Amino acid sequence: MAQPQRLAGYTGYQHFAITSPAAFVAHVEINRPDKLNAFFEAMWLELRRVFQQLSSDADVRAVVLSGAGDRAFTAGLDVKAASEGGVLSAEGADGARRAAKLRRYIAEFQDCISAVEKCEKPVICVMHGISIGLAIDVSTCADIRVCSKDAVFAVKEVDIGLAADIGTLARLPKVVGSSSWVKDVCLTARNFDAAEALSVGFVSQVHESKAAALAAAFKTATFIASKSPVAVQGTKELLNHSRDHTVDDSLRYTGVWNAAALQTSDVPAALLSGMQKRKPTFEKL
Amino acid sequence: MAQPQRLAGYTGYQHFAITSPAAFVAHVEINRPDKLNAFFEAMWLELRRVFQQLSSDADVRAVVLSGAGDRAFTAGLDVKAASEGGVLSAEGADGARRAAKLRRYIAEFQDCISAVEKCEKPVICVMHGISIGLAIDVSTCADIRVCSKDAVFAVKEVDIGLAADIGTLARLPKVVGSSSWVKDVCLTARNFDAAEALSVGFVSQVHESKAAALAAAFKTATFIASKSPVAVQGTKELLNHSRDHTVDDSLRYTGVWNAAALQTSDVPAALLSGMQKRKPTFEKL
Amino acid sequence: MAQPQRLAGYTGYQHFAITSPAAFVAHVEINRPDKLNAFFEAMWLELRRVFQQLSSDADVRAVVLSGAGDRAFTAGLDVKAASEGGVLSAEGADGARRAAKLRRYIAEFQDCISAVEKCEKPVICVMHGISIGLAIDVSTCADIRVCSKDAVFAVKEVDIGLAADIGTLARLPKVVGSSSWVKDVCLTARNFDAAEALSVGFVSQVHESKAAALAAAFKTATFIASKSPVAVQGTKELLNHSRDHTVDDSLRYTGVWNAAALQTSDVPAALLSGMQKRKPTFEKL
Amino acid sequence: MAQPQRLAGYTGYQHFAITSPAAFVAHVEINRPDKLNAFFEAMWLELRRVFQQLSSDADVRAVVLSGAGDRAFTAGLDVKAASEGGVLSAEGADGARRAAKLRRYIAEFQDCISAVEKCEKPVICVMHGISIGLAIDVSTCADIRVCSKDAVFAVKEVDIGLAADIGTLARLPKVVGSSSWVKDVCLTARNFDAAEALSVGFVSQVHESKAAALAAAFKTATFIASKSPVAVQGTKELLNHSRDHTVDDSLRYTGVWNAAALQTSDVPAALLSGMQKRKPTFEKL
Amino acid sequence: MAQPQRLAGYTGYQHFAITSPAAFVAHVEINRPDKLNAFFEAMWLELRRVFQQLSSDADVRAVVLSGAGDRAFTAGLDVKAASEGGVLSAEGADGARRAAKLRRYIAEFQDCISAVEKCEKPVICVMHGISIGLAIDVSTCADIRVCSKDAVFAVKEVDIGLAADIGTLARLPKVVGSSSWVKDVCLTARNFDAAEALSVGFVSQVHESKAAALAAAFKTATFIASKSPVAVQGTKELLNHSRDHTVDDSLRYTGVWNAAALQTSDVPAALLSGMQKRKPTFEKL
Amino acid sequence: MAQPQRLAGYTGYQHFAITSPAAFVAHVEINRPDKLNAFFEAMWLELRRVFQQLSSDADVRAVVLSGAGDRAFTAGLDVKAASEGGVLSAEGADGARRAAKLRRYIAEFQDCISAVEKCEKPVICVMHGISIGLAIDVSTCADIRVCSKDAVFAVKEVDIGLAADIGTLARLPKVVGSSSWVKDVCLTARNFDAAEALSVGFVSQVHESKAAALAAAFKTATFIASKSPVAVQGTKELLNHSRDHTVDDSLRYTGVWNAAALQTSDVPAALLSGMQKRKPTFEKL
Repeated sequence: MAQPQRLAGYTGYQHFAITSPAAFVAHVEINRPDKLNAFFEAMWLELRRVFQQLSSDADVRAVVLSGAGDRAFTAGLDVKAASEGGVLSAEGADGARRAAKLRRYIAEFQDCISAVEKCEKPVICVMHGISIGLAIDVSTCADIRVCSKDAVFAVKEVDIGLAADIGTLARLPKVVGSSSWVKDVCLTARNFDAAEALSVGFVSQVHESKAAALAAAFKTATFIASKSPVAVQGTKELLNHSRDHTVDDSLRYTGVWNAAALQTSDVPAALLSGMQKRKPTFEKL
Repeated sequence: MAQPQRLAGYTGYQHFAITSPAAFVAHVEINRPDKLNAFFEAMWLELRRVFQQLSSDADVRAVVLSGAGDRAFTAGLDVKAASEGGVLSAEGADGARRAAKLRRYIAEFQDCISAVEKCEKPVICVMHGISIGLAIDVSTCADIRVCSKDAVFAVKEVDIGLAADIGTLARLPKVVGSSSWVKDVCLTARNFDAAEALSVGFVSQVHESKAAALAAAFKTATFIASKSPVAVQGTKELLNHSRDHTVDDSLRYTGVWNAAALQTSDVPAALLSGMQKRKPTFEKL
Repeated sequence: MAQPQRLAGYTGYQHFAITSPAAFVAHVEINRPDKLNAFFEAMWLELRRVFQQLSSDADVRAVVLSGAGDRAFTAGLDVKAASEGGVLSAEGADGARRAAKLRRYIAEFQDCISAVEKCEKPVICVMHGISIGLAIDVSTCADIRVCSKDAVFAVKEVDIGLAADIGTLARLPKVVGSSSWVKDVCLTARNFDAAEALSVGFVSQVHESKAAALAAAFKTATFIASKSPVAVQGTKELLNHSRDHTVDDSLRYTGVWNAAALQTSDVPAALLSGMQKRKPTFEKL
Repeated sequence: MAQPQRLAGYTGYQHFAITSPAAFVAHVEINRPDKLNAFFEAMWLELRRVFQQLSSDADVRAVVLSGAGDRAFTAGLDVKAASEGGVLSAEGADGARRAAKLRRYIAEFQDCISAVEKCEKPVICVMHGISIGLAIDVSTCADIRVCSKDAVFAVKEVDIGLAADIGTLARLPKVVGSSSWVKDVCLTARNFDAAEALSVGFVSQVHESKAAALAAAFKTATFIASKSPVAVQGTKELLNHSRDHTVDDSLRYTGVWNAAALQTSDVPAALLSGMQKRKPTFEKL
Repeated sequence: MAQPQRLAGYTGYQHFAITSPAAFVAHVEINRPDKLNAFFEAMWLELRRVFQQLSSDADVRAVVLSGAGDRAFTAGLDVKAASEGGVLSAEGADGARRAAKLRRYIAEFQDCISAVEKCEKPVICVMHGISIGLAIDVSTCADIRVCSKDAVFAVKEVDIGLAADIGTLARLPKVVGSSSWVKDVCLTARNFDAAEALSVGFVSQVHESKAAALAAAFKTATFIASKSPVAVQGTKELLNHSRDHTVDDSLRYTGVWNAAALQTSDVPAALLSGMQKRKPTFEKL
Repeated sequence: MAQPQRLAGYTGYQHFAITSPAAFVAHVEINRPDKLNAFFEAMWLELRRVFQQLSSDADVRAVVLSGAGDRAFTAGLDVKAASEGGVLSAEGADGARRAAKLRRYIAEFQDCISAVEKCEKPVICVMHGISIGLAIDVSTCADIRVCSKDAVFAVKEVDIGLAADIGTLARLPKVVGSSSWVKDVCLTARNFDAAEALSVGFVSQVHESKAAALAAAFKTATFIASKSPVAVQGTKELLNHSRDHTVDDSLRYTGVWNAAALQTSDVPAALLSGMQKRKPTFEKL
């Protein structure tokens, strides 16, 4: 793979490297490899800004998220930093006041991670090596998860005395089908590997190496980016809506959504290029 | 298999062939094989009428839905007809008025397809060959999905510039367990085959040929039709309710439902025939 | 395995044997092996009392539930007893009054079985041999399901003329991912074996024998019981909440929950023992 | 008031008189005054057809619903007819089969009455004289309720041995603010008069006579019909959505709705005519 | 009023006096007048038992709840007792463990008070004099609220440093219509009198004295008790369901409920006695 | 009233004047009186920042929101500015792309106004003079609404060709009790005055003049600010939660909330000062 291009307009980020491996595709790398890409507060605040910018950037139609270095997608929360800062310790005059601080802190932290889910563009998460704790929270916000064979996963929070509160327990049961398996890995904090992740549907592809996984993700992202952005982004929005609503509610919302979305030139463009066996070009969105 | 009997009372349908392969079993065939069973507006309006009739027909206790011909369950929307008619083009004085037309059009279209789900009798969908686009919308309304080895599936809508709006995006996430896989196939519009469909749980059986799949479906339908219709139709209703409600809500609804349903002679009939090792007969419902 | 100890404070139960195979672990055995552990009314009333006691017992941090004897986890409802008692027959002056009796009866029965789910401690259900009817209702209330190779499962209710109303139809669609499979087994009442149960995710482990399955369950239970009970019980609660709520609602609830839960000495205890490579001790909860 | 014009295209209705008292305004009269406008099955089936036609008729922008004659808006269900027909008596082989018939019958009946709510155009219900039983079900489907001083209301169903099942118990708690009052009138079946109806907010205006109430309703309807139909029909839809959803859900739905609705020429037309102090003209919708 | 009769079967209660002022009517008096009927733990545990018994007692069709003595319906929580016991103080090794105790304590307390709402029979709450704090929690569980002129109400909890957690904040917004008023009284803990309570719909009647209010409540209860219990109890259940569900969900639930309830002899009994102008007699329920 | 003090730390705001009329009370004035306090985009972006700052400012315990000048609380959207900017006109290559822009624009606008509701401190809105359009959206986010006699209200949006989309249609039905009145004012865009606003419960107090209304609001705000902030802010949160959830859900959430909140020194402080008849002092929150 050639040296990827820096993506225009994404300067001033310190903890994430943002490049463009193909037209309309952004690649976001968690960029703290010497610390196994472990997160501290400034990082998740920056993560939110990155994905908010991607969400409304008309030059981006698909996003790949991965971790820099050979050893880890991310080892999760930097526990040392967290012990010193807010998330694992709150001061306050009494239990209620400590709780208020913690509640605000957690809400802000959750909001940062949820930015990956709220990004209007599809996000493909590529996981390799150590992928524990916050790695699961972040990846369950992505649309598609793939990994390399060496990936080791764990919902690790129980091992440091807490229930995962940044999204894993809210989203994982809706990401994979077997509730028995979800409870097993969440209650025991045990490791599971790529093969197990594939068999339960947590990831949808396993590749030989991080490089192979990244290449596959870029290929899928490029493929998605070649499609009508009206169709793709509508599909993401409607699938996310569906997760949290009844079928009747989703059908009603879908009808209202498509009443505007069908007023697009992408449909005739796609139909025409389909007949002419050539690649359509779509306006920016 | 002998020539199936026409089902009494199902005349006047043009696009669907309705026969009875066994007592209390109806077989509905999409009957436009020369056009790969592609749908145009008159067809989905008729589909609704067919399933509304089946729903309240006391002589039917299970339904098999399949496509005529060797090549396709259905190739989905007849895009040529749709471009000329309403679904992909709406006229109106301005964007809001075009939206109102589209919204009504989509709501009517959704309602026709949902008739398969609302049918009070279990519906087994048998898919073979080309099974794309609307094929997925229709089949996710069925209770059980089986297919032949040659089936090729795709959530195809993104490829014509639109988000699927007739049910796939509302129902597919509740039909299979892996959200990563659902997003993959919905965002890429890529093909997937029978083996993949089985492994993610989209279908629950794969057979060597369409004939074998149909035979298996008839066998299951006949088996279901031999059971108490009070029990079977209650089970379908309660499972559909459960999908869209909390466990507490479902338990409450179930209690109210069975307070009437248990006042049936089917329970003593089933118990007695169980003890006597003979097949029970149940009153019509 | 040595003779297990009776668990202190659990006397006066007739239909369940309650022992302690390891510190902080309780083992509940359905104890009517000569009748295939089939349930009658006094048993489910007792089941509720057992699990209510376990729920608030600070000496218990994980529970294993299994069936005594070689032949069955449980053959479900004792149909003979039920025909004579309330659940399958209600007297009353008219249909409405019979319905009122049945509704109250079902609500009470549901509430007894739901006690397994409401127990604040993780419950691992070990199934072997005949595991049909009520076996499914009970086991879907557990957090983790494992079984031995000889297990035979069936959602059997349709075969006695009724829709399952004690929890299976409300919970099973949320326990496994494939709706096609759920409808198949619920509508046909057919048997399925351990391998099929594993492949759809109904159980998460299959073992060679009941003894091996029990040993594995004890090991997992002991492992869970070694973790912070604040973390483990919070994880169970938050996963159960997530099943029935939107992601946004779950995130909000999680934040409020952890605002108190993080004010625990378990976090520093876990972190310190992690650094010191020794096993932490946690206060009772 | 001059003789109202028959509304074009509304022929073939037997139980309702449909006229047009002003441009874009339809007046639907329940037309069985010699029987106090009491309903039998053919009437509610026709009511649905009437309101479905009004819903998509671009020449109608507001609807007034009232009862013919001096004595009653409607005395509700024609109990004599009902006793002979389906709603109060169902035949069937056992209690479960009778329940299935009743359930279908009630669902169909509910669907007919709900057509008033689903009508895309605002409906103003004018009530006078006897307005009991089904009168409440129907009127709670309307958007605005006004009455004359002589109106006598009652949620009468308890007095004939049943709980109201065609909509009153589902909608009345969402139509008025005081739950104590709602339970009072629903549990006692007592009469309440126009003044009480106004004070609790069940109606929003009381007039001296039926004629005065009708005149006021026509004035309001004409006023509404002079506004942008995109704005008015959107407002009705969004208020109905709001009743059954959280604020967050409604805000999301509203944003999607208006993303299309704002692409209307009605906004510039309304703004321009506002500046020019003249009455705008809006395209049909 | 003559000396009321003790209600058969209600012995062994210490804190509540249970009598029968009329056939099928129960009167429950909070019976600690020397302490302004203030509640301590044993009282709410007993309150639950009382209402559970009433709920399934076929000889009771309506319930009146009031406070003994001249001065107070209830002054709410006995703060002195509460400070010494559990609700306002929890011991535990750390904040998380104290929270767990408090959570269980609150859940149990809530469950006791909710027994008034869950009682299948209509409950009329008669309030007089001091009616603050827990008085509001309890009364919002009743179906109908009436009071005497001297009643003084307050959502008092804020004044002792806590948010009301036994039901007021969950139910009051659904009991009265004006959210501005609800927030006013809940945030300020200010008193409001009978006239204000009536004008916002918190109570539906105000009477000159406690005796007059009780007499009116007995009259209404007796009137309700003369109606079909199938109709009355169904109406209560469906109104309670409606509060927490969408209209569509309520219509569906209603249809299933009435499918059994209409199979009652009360409908023909009510119709016949209506024609014959005599009082019907209904079977016990 | 003496010259109010500027509130420390609230510099750099251009469109809002923020002062402190009493300890722990903030007063936010919409400060564009020469344009009737009409809003343009920079103003609602600033409104969000103001309320986000107030939300987490431990020196603020209650907020009063009003409009500067004699003539208007706010005349709503500055239509002239809006026509030139985004909200009433969106450019884009086709209808779908225009819709995407509008959707993002509306979502951002909604989020700014919702900041008033999300502010953790109680907000009292004082309305006078012209209070139309956006005035209703903003005020329905406040907790308590009061007004002066000269206030004139209107849900004005229909008159400019659009359905209100910034919150009125989502919140107003949950703010007042009479759905007939809500639909009346929303569908007709007619004016209503202070007396009508009071009678339907939209406001909870009417005062002779703006000055009197402000004085009353300051008094209430000061009163609230003298209470335990743990109790007051918990009460606001739980009432907001209740609006959008079932009673069961709210009770569960309340229990978890108070499990931390009761670990406050405010309860003993409030109890002690109550006994000693002196004013308690509470720690900052």
